Amino acid sequence: MSVSEQLEIIRRGAVEVLLEKELEEKLEKSLKTGVPLKIKAGFDPTAPDLHFGHTVLLQKLRQFQQLGHEVYFLIGDFTGMIGDPTGKSETRKALTRDDVLRNAETYKDQVFKILDPEKTKVVFNSEWLSPLQASDLIALAAKYTVARMLEREDFHNRFANQQPISIHEFLYPLIQGYDSVALQADIELGGTDQKFNLLVGRELQRGWGQAPQTVITMPLLEGLDGINKMSKSLGNYIGINESPDDIFGKIMSITDELMVRYYELLSDLSLDELGKLQNGLRDGTIHPMEAKKALGRELVARYHGSLEADAAVENFVRRFRDNQVPEEMADIALDCDAGTMLLCKALAEAGLVKSNSEGRRTILQGGVKVDSEKVADENCELYKGKEYVIQVGKRRFARIRVQ
Amino acid sequence: MSVSEQLEIIRRGAVEVLLEKELEEKLEKSLKTGVPLKIKAGFDPTAPDLHFGHTVLLQKLRQFQQLGHEVYFLIGDFTGMIGDPTGKSETRKALTRDDVLRNAETYKDQVFKILDPEKTKVVFNSEWLSPLQASDLIALAAKYTVARMLEREDFHNRFANQQPISIHEFLYPLIQGYDSVALQADIELGGTDQKFNLLVGRELQRGWGQAPQTVITMPLLEGLDGINKMSKSLGNYIGINESPDDIFGKIMSITDELMVRYYELLSDLSLDELGKLQNGLRDGTIHPMEAKKALGRELVARYHGSLEADAAVENFVRRFRDNQVPEEMADIALDCDAGTMLLCKALAEAGLVKSNSEGRRTILQGGVKVDSEKVADENCELYKGKEYVIQVGKRRFARIRVQ
Repeated sequence: MSVSEQLEIIRRGAVEVLLEKELEEKLEKSLKTGVPLKIKAGFDPTAPDLHFGHTVLLQKLRQFQQLGHEVYFLIGDFTGMIGDPTGKSETRKALTRDDVLRNAETYKDQVFKILDPEKTKVVFNSEWLSPLQASDLIALAAKYTVARMLEREDFHNRFANQQPISIHEFLYPLIQGYDSVALQADIELGGTDQKFNLLVGRELQRGWGQAPQTVITMPLLEGLDGINKMSKSLGNYIGINESPDDIFGKIMSITDELMVRYYELLSDLSLDELGKLQNGLRDGTIHPMEAKKALGRELVARYHGSLEADAAVENFVRRFRDNQVPEEMADIALDCDAGTMLLCKALAEAGLVKSNSEGRRTILQGGVKVDSEKVADENCELYKGKEYVIQVGKRRFARIRVQ
Repeated sequence: MSVSEQLEIIRRGAVEVLLEKELEEKLEKSLKTGVPLKIKAGFDPTAPDLHFGHTVLLQKLRQFQQLGHEVYFLIGDFTGMIGDPTGKSETRKALTRDDVLRNAETYKDQVFKILDPEKTKVVFNSEWLSPLQASDLIALAAKYTVARMLEREDFHNRFANQQPISIHEFLYPLIQGYDSVALQADIELGGTDQKFNLLVGRELQRGWGQAPQTVITMPLLEGLDGINKMSKSLGNYIGINESPDDIFGKIMSITDELMVRYYELLSDLSLDELGKLQNGLRDGTIHPMEAKKALGRELVARYHGSLEADAAVENFVRRFRDNQVPEEMADIALDCDAGTMLLCKALAEAGLVKSNSEGRRTILQGGVKVDSEKVADENCELYKGKEYVIQVGKRRFARIRVQ
């Protein structure tokens, strides 16, 4: 694939590419020499339970693999094995070598649903950082100033707000940058929140006489609400280990706008196809629900296979059809002397069942819904002066007004 | 010696003792158990050429030795062997192991004129710092915050003035503090400019479950001018390797006030004798010049031995006597027609020589001084309306007024 075609794919969904000119030269050289580029992305050493937000980066790595480049999936176990030396946080215990290896396996189970295992090198930074001497780290620390480190947004804010920053926190961006030196990375990917650290890598590589890595930042994916960043704690996420029906259903629940965003960041749809989809949505030749179904099918298939994806679509369509409230239905007014009326009685009077007792039985068997909610209580009452949509079984509907 | 007597000696000349209460307890314990205290003082690994300013600290260490305690003369070779990793300063090259050992020998040659070699352990911090892993240093860096490190005066000023501070500079106070942990120091001595670093040592020791070291700061010695800190670059110093005559002469040149200060900080005179000296100077029973001679003699003897010291005193007294201008001498007025008068003629007319030509010869032979300055020019002229003290040879003086 030509350099400009590669560039277009790499740019897809990315927030920044620094510097694009350098990237172009690297791609040209790689094309000429046949030597693939080394793409680095770093991940936490803690046990992962990935959601779609994490896969934005993985999707970009997958694209690099499809372009023939080499992905280094770096697990930052070195600092994880130190733990939190301040001893303040109970949650950050030092990981053992075994923890790290176990977590790595959990990673592989999940990420190899997206990445090609053949083109992925899983590396641990402890490999080159554990043998590092204190004197090496001092030499590393000499390469950056306090003032420049304080330019990192979170450091800057904490310093301004007089919240403590431990000195070792200033070492971590340098260590992450040194990983790029050790790997001789051509490109490093990260979220927009990682931009500062990725740029430190560029600088250190220069100091070591290497060509500085191209930095590509990817956006933080919006969650199901379309507003906040997808996260476990906000509950607006789709976990990649969720069931086919849950993943499909959640995808079907998002707005049309967010669907296009997810297509851009998560789907394997080519840029060409993506363009056609957007045009079709705009001129009305493609129905948004059909587009959402196709996206849901693609993503379920990725994590659960094609058969499961087909089943998820069918399940959804059936449930959707079953749950559909018809636009036209009988309008029935029921007279009531008291303030309330028993539901079973209303069912009989409306002709939805033959008698009060059949109404009772049908309620107890779970066959009655009021305003789309299943009713289980045979003594359920309706209020005078209100209107209800009542469903019996799958097909019988009526709009009942108690008066 | 009792604890209170020891305390009095330790306090002599010190700027601060932190905390004195703790020091008292340590001295008591040492007295009870017979286990000497460990006194730490750190020195640069660069080739030393010590002047009296450096010996203030050494003198205090000597007093600790005389009190029976154990001095650790720590050469900070670890960071010296890293050099200046910024590469900005050409003057701070990395020292080799051989450099360090050679410099240590130069140190010993000099400091053992003050310290007792039997009670001095010369240690190199590379011993425990070279095996230190990067991960250990990260754990160390976690124990201190950026904000607190920026409280150190020089860091604070440089930060405020937007002068760069490299991140490794933040590691050095921690490393120096870790030295105290490694040595399990009971006391650390330093100049007042070292106070911050010495206090970091206290804190780290606490973190390691050790009793925090007592911090004793010594003043920066004033130079010969009595105002500025003694330093090579200001030229107001006395080097310990200077000749007996130079050391003695420089001591004789200082003010009476500075002499008392030097006695306090540099001399072995006991506190009792020091008190008597100060009283004697105050009530006039001791002549300042005699006190200065005694100080000069003591200090020359320390670096060159007793015989050399006696010779220096004699040399000084003889030179002094020879250079002395008598208070009483002949007052001679010489009449002069022109604006000036030849010096040789004036010598003859004043009867200091027999003729103009003898005057010329004596000038050329270097035998004539005008206002204590030797005159070499036979055509030297004196000005009408002025008065001169003229010396011929060692003994002939006259006050001559040309009118």
